[in-house]
Amino acid sequence: MKSANGINLTMLCDFYELTMGNGYLRAGLGDRITCFDVFYRQVPDDGGYAIAAGLEQIVDYIQNLHFDAEDIAYLRSRALFCEEFLDYLQHFRFTGDIWAVPEGTPIFPREPVITVRATAIQAQLIETYLLLEFNHQSLIATKANRICRAAEGRAVLEFGSRRAQGIAGAVVGARAAYIGGCAGTACTVSDPLYGVRAAGTMAHSWVQMFDSEYDAFVSYCRSYPTNAVLLVDTYNSLKSGVPNAIRAFNEVLRPLGITSCGIRFDSGDMAYLTKQARQMLDEAGWTGCKITVSNSLDEWLIADLLRQGARIDSFGVGERLITSKSAPVFGGVYKLCAVEGADGTLEPRIKISENVGKITNPGFKKVYRFYNRATGMAEADYICLRHETVDDSRPLEICDPDARWKRKLMENFEARELQVPVFEKGELVYELPALDAIRAHCAAEVARLWPEVRRFENPHGYYVDLSEELMALKDRLLEAGGSRL
Amino acid sequence: MKSANGINLTMLCDFYELTMGNGYLRAGLGDRITCFDVFYRQVPDDGGYAIAAGLEQIVDYIQNLHFDAEDIAYLRSRALFCEEFLDYLQHFRFTGDIWAVPEGTPIFPREPVITVRATAIQAQLIETYLLLEFNHQSLIATKANRICRAAEGRAVLEFGSRRAQGIAGAVVGARAAYIGGCAGTACTVSDPLYGVRAAGTMAHSWVQMFDSEYDAFVSYCRSYPTNAVLLVDTYNSLKSGVPNAIRAFNEVLRPLGITSCGIRFDSGDMAYLTKQARQMLDEAGWTGCKITVSNSLDEWLIADLLRQGARIDSFGVGERLITSKSAPVFGGVYKLCAVEGADGTLEPRIKISENVGKITNPGFKKVYRFYNRATGMAEADYICLRHETVDDSRPLEICDPDARWKRKLMENFEARELQVPVFEKGELVYELPALDAIRAHCAAEVARLWPEVRRFENPHGYYVDLSEELMALKDRLLEAGGSRL
Repeated sequence: MKSANGINLTMLCDFYELTMGNGYLRAGLGDRITCFDVFYRQVPDDGGYAIAAGLEQIVDYIQNLHFDAEDIAYLRSRALFCEEFLDYLQHFRFTGDIWAVPEGTPIFPREPVITVRATAIQAQLIETYLLLEFNHQSLIATKANRICRAAEGRAVLEFGSRRAQGIAGAVVGARAAYIGGCAGTACTVSDPLYGVRAAGTMAHSWVQMFDSEYDAFVSYCRSYPTNAVLLVDTYNSLKSGVPNAIRAFNEVLRPLGITSCGIRFDSGDMAYLTKQARQMLDEAGWTGCKITVSNSLDEWLIADLLRQGARIDSFGVGERLITSKSAPVFGGVYKLCAVEGADGTLEPRIKISENVGKITNPGFKKVYRFYNRATGMAEADYICLRHETVDDSRPLEICDPDARWKRKLMENFEARELQVPVFEKGELVYELPALDAIRAHCAAEVARLWPEVRRFENPHGYYVDLSEELMALKDRLLEAGGSRL
Repeated sequence: MKSANGINLTMLCDFYELTMGNGYLRAGLGDRITCFDVFYRQVPDDGGYAIAAGLEQIVDYIQNLHFDAEDIAYLRSRALFCEEFLDYLQHFRFTGDIWAVPEGTPIFPREPVITVRATAIQAQLIETYLLLEFNHQSLIATKANRICRAAEGRAVLEFGSRRAQGIAGAVVGARAAYIGGCAGTACTVSDPLYGVRAAGTMAHSWVQMFDSEYDAFVSYCRSYPTNAVLLVDTYNSLKSGVPNAIRAFNEVLRPLGITSCGIRFDSGDMAYLTKQARQMLDEAGWTGCKITVSNSLDEWLIADLLRQGARIDSFGVGERLITSKSAPVFGGVYKLCAVEGADGTLEPRIKISENVGKITNPGFKKVYRFYNRATGMAEADYICLRHETVDDSRPLEICDPDARWKRKLMENFEARELQVPVFEKGELVYELPALDAIRAHCAAEVARLWPEVRRFENPHGYYVDLSEELMALKDRLLEAGGSRL
């Protein structure tokens, strides 16, 4: 009986990374330097942007890359790998370079979020886990950001562990949700592990354990007088739940001078129930009582409840957040963009596809974000070859790579490189920010996107343009049919 | 920097399990015996049944339940829990009873899949993880079973690690997919961990690393002559990929007398491409070459390709399987059904809801499956109180609990209890089957469902009936408004 908890993550790779690695070694290509880009093609839920997340866990993974003796024994048992390759794996460590966009940053389709420069075997081996972690956490951070925006400043608590897709789905999911803007989680372990505040009060079973709902509420208030949030929908929310909650508050909290408390609805018509409950609580003098709702909520239901005037102070969001139910896949890919040539220089590579959207941007690249100096708002991203530099003291004309007659003159702008160096020759050179700093960075950078990019319905397509040099390179490679220059 | 890999799973619980546990202790209810049922309400994708999975990992979890000193320290820091409770947690182990439906068994809405009888604190604490593991693995096993049925006996390989929702999403997901019928996985670690055969050959990057596609194919065939599956869509599938594959097979494999090999398409019109490729391969004498396709497949696309006469031998299925993209949540719940009374007997509990479908079945229960002795087919499931027994040597009239005029006389049937004892007084009493046995059990039990229950569109609603005694109990509790009898 074995658990996925505590495995050697180096072995969490697609089997073809190993067959290719062994093949590269045998073909004399094992030490050939390669460059790969991680990017994505479509924003989940047809949104205007995504939130990058997962880098901290990727750093941890890279630092711990190794094969144990039992891993080697398993691979040997498959009778596919030469002893030279198995010996190579025994001494495996990552010695390459990685650049990445910091966690919490809004990212757009087709721009390189993570760039890896390493030997072919190394770069290939890390593909699966890099994508897994980037895709999972970016998915949840992006969804959480949508839900929190819908809540318009009200607290959103992540409640989804029981419906998560596995251990990390819950635990790491809570971390990603926090980056996207959630105020806390129900997942206890994510608090000591990551510092995501864990919270929670009672289930229906608490109420059912006592002789009456009133007894259950009184008992809870006595145990947690400063944290009394009562679940009021076990029997009948307005006829029984809310009146019993008020009685229990009066009985236990009032004599203690406590005025802050809460109730939670987990079923029923939330617009109607919360308006009625607010009135009942206020009339009973419990204006400091907060109302929380939960029950299959998402960004659309939350926005709709608020449009209806529901009286809600915070939201508990479960399965539709922790699985990003309406769009449960983040399609990040890992594509070869350059290979070291005979003379030691990097030669660009392109992947051609009949589907134009799947053609890759060739070459060893970087990406800038252009902020308007007058408004502070982000206006365009600009992908160029890594040796290029943007001089933001002078105007720059950029153009849409898919519709080149659409041109825009950037003036009075600040150009900031999005990627930062994370590993150099296998050494960590990046100081990982604290989780609260990542969350604050996310909020600040989202605030620098125009509302037209942030809206849920038909958001404006943010500009992601290519430099003239990169476009010319891509054109040449396409005309050559994808072969090397 | 901390990873979700290797955490104490005891702390993977909703925080309210702990606040309730502390509250039960303070209210003198901590040692009160309770019964909880795990069941689900809706089959994902509007299918006719689901596949139970996750029990092995739940057993592992139960056996390892404990709080470390650092866990206690964290909980103490929250200033919510009394020292008596923290002391209780320090010595915590599970001493209750658990019954469960074996993994791989088809399960239907509302029937108890797992039943827990334990003290209130213990039963509450394990809720979150039980649901997480049952929901995740049942979700993926159910989806895999659908996809494998659509493939009509052709091999389905699980390829989704890079798009999985976290580590266990990939690793445990591969296990659940295997239970549902997949032939193997791309996820390397799931092979040594669970015995799910890992396989894979090459990515587009392999082809791009060489001076030409032909060189790439020849090099691969030389490294893996008995396992040469070539990815043919990097440049142009029919003009370049398939002809180069045939040339490489001729060059490397033919002299070795090897006739089995393969090609894979990862993009394009799979119906057209595979028919053309089959003809080209056959004409070149490579009738033993198998054709694999991948690229965002699911049960609907696979069924449609086969209807079109596509010439496909096996399918690689990624994101739509590993996240169950079209229905990414399995809605299993954990509901209190009985509490020990003052006299030591178990008193039934019910959860009432304005949504009739959310009303629970009260009492300490079990479930039978009735098989027709003449056909061997499953005809109905039957939920009754645990002290009841079904005598299958005599006819039994059953009725639909939601439409009681619908009655059916069971004759010549075999009644088999679905749940088996797993833990008794905290001791494991169940011999966990090997994964291959679970997979075979799944296939055999699915074959005993009528085709009308198995079909994708509007499947027949399989009967899940209640005993007369259970129905009468439920009626009495509903009339009493949910309070105890």
